[in-house]
Order: sequence, then structure tokens, then C-alpha cells
Amino acid sequence: MPSKREERRNALHKLLVDIAEERVVQHGAHAIKARELAKEAGCALGAIYNVFDDLTHIVLEVNGRSFRLLGQDVRTALSAQTSGNPNDELMVIANAYLEFATSQTNRWRSLFEVPFSPDLDVPQWYWDEMEDLFDLISDPVARAFPDLPLQDQTLMTKALFSSVQGIISFGIENRNSPVPLSDLKRMVELIVTQVIKNK
Amino acid sequence: MPSKREERRNALHKLLVDIAEERVVQHGAHAIKARELAKEAGCALGAIYNVFDDLTHIVLEVNGRSFRLLGQDVRTALSAQTSGNPNDELMVIANAYLEFATSQTNRWRSLFEVPFSPDLDVPQWYWDEMEDLFDLISDPVARAFPDLPLQDQTLMTKALFSSVQGIISFGIENRNSPVPLSDLKRMVELIVTQVIKNK
Repeated sequence: MPSKREERRNALHKLLVDIAEERVVQHGAHAIKARELAKEAGCALGAIYNVFDDLTHIVLEVNGRSFRLLGQDVRTALSAQTSGNPNDELMVIANAYLEFATSQTNRWRSLFEVPFSPDLDVPQWYWDEMEDLFDLISDPVARAFPDLPLQDQTLMTKALFSSVQGIISFGIENRNSPVPLSDLKRMVELIVTQVIKNK
Repeated sequence: MPSKREERRNALHKLLVDIAEERVVQHGAHAIKARELAKEAGCALGAIYNVFDDLTHIVLEVNGRSFRLLGQDVRTALSAQTSGNPNDELMVIANAYLEFATSQTNRWRSLFEVPFSPDLDVPQWYWDEMEDLFDLISDPVARAFPDLPLQDQTLMTKALFSSVQGIISFGIENRNSPVPLSDLKRMVELIVTQVIKNK
């Protein structure tokens, strides 16, 4: 059983991540500021650093929650797709990701804004959660390309992910001439179905 | 004939872009600072703003030069590719772009770092130069997909560009686990050849 002290620490941990998550959703990761977090949590500034090494680790916690939300979205969408066809599954995954990125853009953007300096001690669970998401893609990729060497299957998984990521970024970050959502969907479809169609 | 005054203005314009370009290449667009530019150019701080609306317009000029360098690279690579096969041409274009982004990363990154605020008055030549680069892709796309409606051909052009862009960003900006260049090349190849293979 956790001690009273541990309990208080865990409660503050959760409270700070709750507040930070709200700020990421509303304004983006840059809106996470120690002084404001402390004020909203009703704790001393120093108390934050008893619970977290630094602010980046709070962003990692928020991103961890985003990974799980995204994973849920993808799994829910996949469970409604019963054809067993890997092309269909990859389109479902890509569309669920597109939906996530466009409807929760600050949350999505925060996943790629972590300043991964060489001395940042990224917790193992973070890589594991990311890996879990990639596994959702690598499974249909393996079935779509059974003859591709394993190393190429891995690269194909990353290539498909980063292609869709590139298309979404092109649409969302292109502030001078925004791309309509219907065009983004079609762009994703053109790439993903073409890639899978003729394996 | 330009007046003496215009001549001096043009010379300062060129000198400032030369200095800014060097800074972008060495350190990136964030290294363009008015005070330092003025010092290096040997002009008054205010003189910069007689020639440019703001620093962003200097970045646009540097990017314009980068567009032309990239266009040259792509055209040179294409001139050595005489099969007439659009798949080969698209691979040549993608590889020339990959080469540009990995060998001149600060220059490449600067293309996507311009703060396109809604009130930024982007000169028409900038969009035209960008369009010229897209035309290099849309030409083989049109030959690869003659049966695709024109609107889809346009989306395919953007989708292929942003897929390759996504793969390159995944490799270059992924500071925690850098992707070897050979893997990046293979990822680009997997996507581009698969997309084109059996249109």
C-alpha cells in the first residue's frame, strides 16, 4: 500500500498532468508553464519538480494519454471493419489518424513538438506506447506484403505512417492555402490504396 | 537605366540576401537578425527596412534562391534519365529532393519555417517559383495516371510530394532515433514505386 506521502505525490502527479492536458488541448504544448501550472494546482513552484524532472516530462505524460486515445480510436474503427482485407484496414487506420489530427490538432501537434535533446531521459513506457501504435500498422502491412523481407516490411510501416503524416501536415500546417478535409482524405486514399493495391 | 539611388538600393538588396543566405545555410532561418545583418552589411539598421518590408521577406528571397537551386538539381537529374518512364522520373525527382534535404538541411528546413501570418504580403513570384517545382512532379504524374480525373492528378501530385516530405521529415527531424539515409531512400522507393507501379 502506498504511504500517505506517496498518495499525495501521486495525486499531485495526476492533477498536474490533468491541468497540462487541458492546456495542450486548448493552446498547445508551448502553453505549459511551470508558474501557471503551480498556481492552478495550488502547489508551490518547487513541488512540481519533486514530481517531475522537468516540464518536458509533463508533456510526455500528456502525449502518453494522447497515444492511448489515438490507439482507442484506431481500435474502435478497426473493430467495425471486418473484411479482413489489409488494404481496408490500412485505410481505416489512416482515416482514424486523419480524424484525430484534424479534430484534436493541438494534441496531435504536441506529439511532434517534444524537444528530444540528447540528454532527455525518455521513459521506456513512452517508446513502448509509440511502438504499440506502430504495431497497429505493421500487422496489416505484414499481411499485405507477405513476400517482402521483414526489414522492408518495417520500412514500409514507417513509410506509410510518415506519408500519411506528411499529407496531414501539408494540409494542417499550410496556413497560406489550407487544404479542404475532403481533399486530404482523397490524398491519403490515393497513396494508401495505390501502395497496397499492387503488392 | 536605373538611377544611382536605385543602383545603391539594388546593391544593398543583393548584399542583404547574400548575407542572409549564408546565415540560413550555416544556422537556419532563425539566425536572420536585423542588427547583425546591418552590421555585416555595413549599413544602418533602418536601411534594411528601406529595402525590405520585414525580415520575413528576406527569408522569402533566400527561399526563392533555394527553390531555384532545387529546381536545377531536379532538372539536372531528370536530364540524365531518358527512359521516358514516369515511374523512373518520379523516383529521380524524389531522390534529388531527398539529396537536397539531407545535404542542405538548413536551407530545406527554412522553406517550411516561414511564418505565413494572414497579413503577410507574399509576393506573386514566390508562389510562381513553388508552382514551377510542383509542375516538375505533375508532368510525370499526368503521364503515369492518364485516366485519373484532372482534379485527382493534382491531388496525386500534392500527395506524392507530401508523402516524400513526410518520410524525409521522419528521418531528419527524428532526433531520438535517426534513420540511416539508406533506409530513407528505401522508404521513398517503397512508396513511390508502389504508388506508380500499377496505376
